[in-house]
Amino acid sequence: MMEKAITDLPLYKIANPDSIAILGASNQFQSMGTIVLSVIQGLGYKGMIYPVHPKEETVLGLKAYQLVEDLPEVPDLAIIVLPTRIVVEAMEACGKKGIRHAIVVSGGFGEAGETGISMQKQLQETAERHGIRFIGPNCIGAVNPHHNFNATFLSYSQKPGFIGMASQSGSFITQMFDYLKLFGLGFSTGFSVGNESDIDIIDCMEYLALCPHTKVIGLYIEGIRRGREFVKAARRISQKKPIVAYYAGGTDAGKKAGFSHTGSMAGPDKVYDGVFRQCGIVRAYSIEELYDFCWCLGAVPLPAGNRVLVQTHSGGPGAVAADACDRAGLVLPPLSANTREKLADYVPHTASMNNPVDLTFTRNPQDYIDAIPRLLVQEENVDTVLMYMMTPSATIQRAMEAMGIEKEQAVKETERFIDDQSRSLGDFIAASQKTFLGFSYSMGENRFVRGLYNAGVPVLPSPTRAARALWAMVEYSRLKKKIANSIID
Amino acid sequence: MMEKAITDLPLYKIANPDSIAILGASNQFQSMGTIVLSVIQGLGYKGMIYPVHPKEETVLGLKAYQLVEDLPEVPDLAIIVLPTRIVVEAMEACGKKGIRHAIVVSGGFGEAGETGISMQKQLQETAERHGIRFIGPNCIGAVNPHHNFNATFLSYSQKPGFIGMASQSGSFITQMFDYLKLFGLGFSTGFSVGNESDIDIIDCMEYLALCPHTKVIGLYIEGIRRGREFVKAARRISQKKPIVAYYAGGTDAGKKAGFSHTGSMAGPDKVYDGVFRQCGIVRAYSIEELYDFCWCLGAVPLPAGNRVLVQTHSGGPGAVAADACDRAGLVLPPLSANTREKLADYVPHTASMNNPVDLTFTRNPQDYIDAIPRLLVQEENVDTVLMYMMTPSATIQRAMEAMGIEKEQAVKETERFIDDQSRSLGDFIAASQKTFLGFSYSMGENRFVRGLYNAGVPVLPSPTRAARALWAMVEYSRLKKKIANSIID
Repeated sequence: MMEKAITDLPLYKIANPDSIAILGASNQFQSMGTIVLSVIQGLGYKGMIYPVHPKEETVLGLKAYQLVEDLPEVPDLAIIVLPTRIVVEAMEACGKKGIRHAIVVSGGFGEAGETGISMQKQLQETAERHGIRFIGPNCIGAVNPHHNFNATFLSYSQKPGFIGMASQSGSFITQMFDYLKLFGLGFSTGFSVGNESDIDIIDCMEYLALCPHTKVIGLYIEGIRRGREFVKAARRISQKKPIVAYYAGGTDAGKKAGFSHTGSMAGPDKVYDGVFRQCGIVRAYSIEELYDFCWCLGAVPLPAGNRVLVQTHSGGPGAVAADACDRAGLVLPPLSANTREKLADYVPHTASMNNPVDLTFTRNPQDYIDAIPRLLVQEENVDTVLMYMMTPSATIQRAMEAMGIEKEQAVKETERFIDDQSRSLGDFIAASQKTFLGFSYSMGENRFVRGLYNAGVPVLPSPTRAARALWAMVEYSRLKKKIANSIID
Repeated sequence: MMEKAITDLPLYKIANPDSIAILGASNQFQSMGTIVLSVIQGLGYKGMIYPVHPKEETVLGLKAYQLVEDLPEVPDLAIIVLPTRIVVEAMEACGKKGIRHAIVVSGGFGEAGETGISMQKQLQETAERHGIRFIGPNCIGAVNPHHNFNATFLSYSQKPGFIGMASQSGSFITQMFDYLKLFGLGFSTGFSVGNESDIDIIDCMEYLALCPHTKVIGLYIEGIRRGREFVKAARRISQKKPIVAYYAGGTDAGKKAGFSHTGSMAGPDKVYDGVFRQCGIVRAYSIEELYDFCWCLGAVPLPAGNRVLVQTHSGGPGAVAADACDRAGLVLPPLSANTREKLADYVPHTASMNNPVDLTFTRNPQDYIDAIPRLLVQEENVDTVLMYMMTPSATIQRAMEAMGIEKEQAVKETERFIDDQSRSLGDFIAASQKTFLGFSYSMGENRFVRGLYNAGVPVLPSPTRAARALWAMVEYSRLKKKIANSIID
């Protein structure tokens, strides 16, 4: 089967429009349409924007058009943020103009009782008649920072990333902008699928599978409608790119919540568990896990197996990491004699050369991030190195001040020292092509950790989360092989 | 039984010394002792500090004494950060001087093989002979920010808090300083117990039970030695203050790590599970949980039962919260007719008046944090309100700018608006005396969330963590009652 080109997919023009019409933006700042338009402008979208408004001459500084038919060209995409009752006629006008792609943000359709369901049917029929492909209704749109395109309610201020996301809740696109920023991460593309009247989460998977910026696909699922197609697509795609899914609605309470939210029927937890495994999808049990797993699967080479080496300079974090690894089904084998011998040159007698390798302190503090990880990645008994990341900036700075360096200078020197450390370690990890994860109780507020983020090294914010993320990588590897074998069979 | 006064406990002078001798500090900034002294000075300790050094005239600007016997008074506390081989003789000198309390930071004792074990015995005998009570060896000391006293390796820059911590790993004191700061939290007092040669984790519990600044006790445990005494003390104390424990070493990997770390034999996971329950101790399964549970148990009135109401304006976070509550054994009952009727005045037709109450948006955005929570806390069907906290500052600011307010002014006005919101909500929650928790995917980097932290409202960084913390509160309540009844019987 010849693979489709991404440009042939219905979502291509939705995520990469060269020109857009926006229906529902005005100069009233509280209106949803106006917010969407100002957000589009905010990310510096480079294509043409045509506001359509019955009365205004200009909208947020842009020339406005009274009717869709007045537009000077056929835009790639229409974004509809109008009151429910006039959405169908707007879709009709778009169709007549020749527009073939739309995002319908407006709610009050399938999720809102009988009248809504009937209106959604009309909307679908109108779009089909004109060959329009659309996402929504009742969604918050799409974001593609690689195209400077953000058609949602919230500003995106982070650099473009490698996580492609399709979500049955818009919140897990927009409200993750700031969350991902904490870890120096961003979206490649994010879709809020809303009621999935036309384009659904399977179409999004297909798009993200071909998207060159997307290294890993995240899904937030409350219910899947085309089950058979979902399984078929996911099994194929997961051979090429990892897919991580959070499923809400599996338990009784979640089921009720899911139902009222997007009007989709949620199935039982265990069924989804089996479906995901069968598809090669790794299941996350919280939103934190969803993004942690995406982070590691997108940034780090897959481990060959489940054997972990933990490097720490603090007993407690090492013990918690060992505990968490064990609970996650990972093993900590003893170090080989070879590694122990080499390690002896660097460590004090208080150090433990078991696994976790607890160095307490090193003869030369630089060794902890320099010689020792370089030595440990060569350990043949393990598949992954999990390293505790912590640099006490305050102590370094105080030491410099004690040496007689002036405070202002000491601050700068400390920063430079920390930056050098994180860069050097980051470069080494990237070049080593080994599975190498960091963990810490600090996040981006810590300069060393931030430096590692910037160098592309995942530093999970706790050993528990690091162990779970590593489990996800081992699990993906296992499922992928299993499916590959079953396909060959 | 007459309760002891806190001033009679061996830890009182260790956590609240009026004067200290420090053995091992010099003017060499890399030495451990020097770091400890500079950290003590860093928190603005108000008592007298007497460095003892064989050669130096002054140490970090303080007059130094050649021998302990030269000190001009008998200090309340000696802090010993000397090479292993001279620790016993230092303890002897302290005893002769009349010093009766010590912190032994030096390692190389019970955790370091036969010679170490024998030296620890000598240390213990020496202390006993002089009636010295001490923590350590092989610990990182103690911190009591309420007394401006920080005898650890790391600076404490956060305000004093209400979490009293006793830890068999020093890391979970010092390396939590910055972590707790993320949530606007701090320690009341923290003890690193090290090898527990004399004072152990049970003594710390007894101290923290009487400490007026401590609202909740946290424990990091790798192994308990005086099992019977632990259970007896914890059962008594947990009737007055909640105790939360993380136990590492329960699994195979953790067991090995725990053994090499403090030389204590770790027991099987299930045994500790039962012991904790029997003691009224709530068990945490990660360090995040340990501090989350402490936070909520220390800051919020206990719920009467396990019935939760979730307030959200976003379907996804609501669905995840419902799911997480269900997994944590909490229930989401339907709203009473009374609440539904009152709520109808505030919400649009798109809102869900099920539980989660998903308001999508409110007619007046102010209602979400104002009228609606005030209405929902009165719902008789539930014991707790769990509220999604999110205020899109960027959108508010943009709206102000769209109204013609200048950018600089808009930034200020937005900040003031957000601060007013968090203060008003925080004041209401504090006054309501209801179990009320927030959740968000943002932390202190978000001004609204930070404002709530400052107002004393826990805002957990995810619905999953909020549900687990709420479970901890329900569980503590249940265990406390159960033990109270068994004591009466």
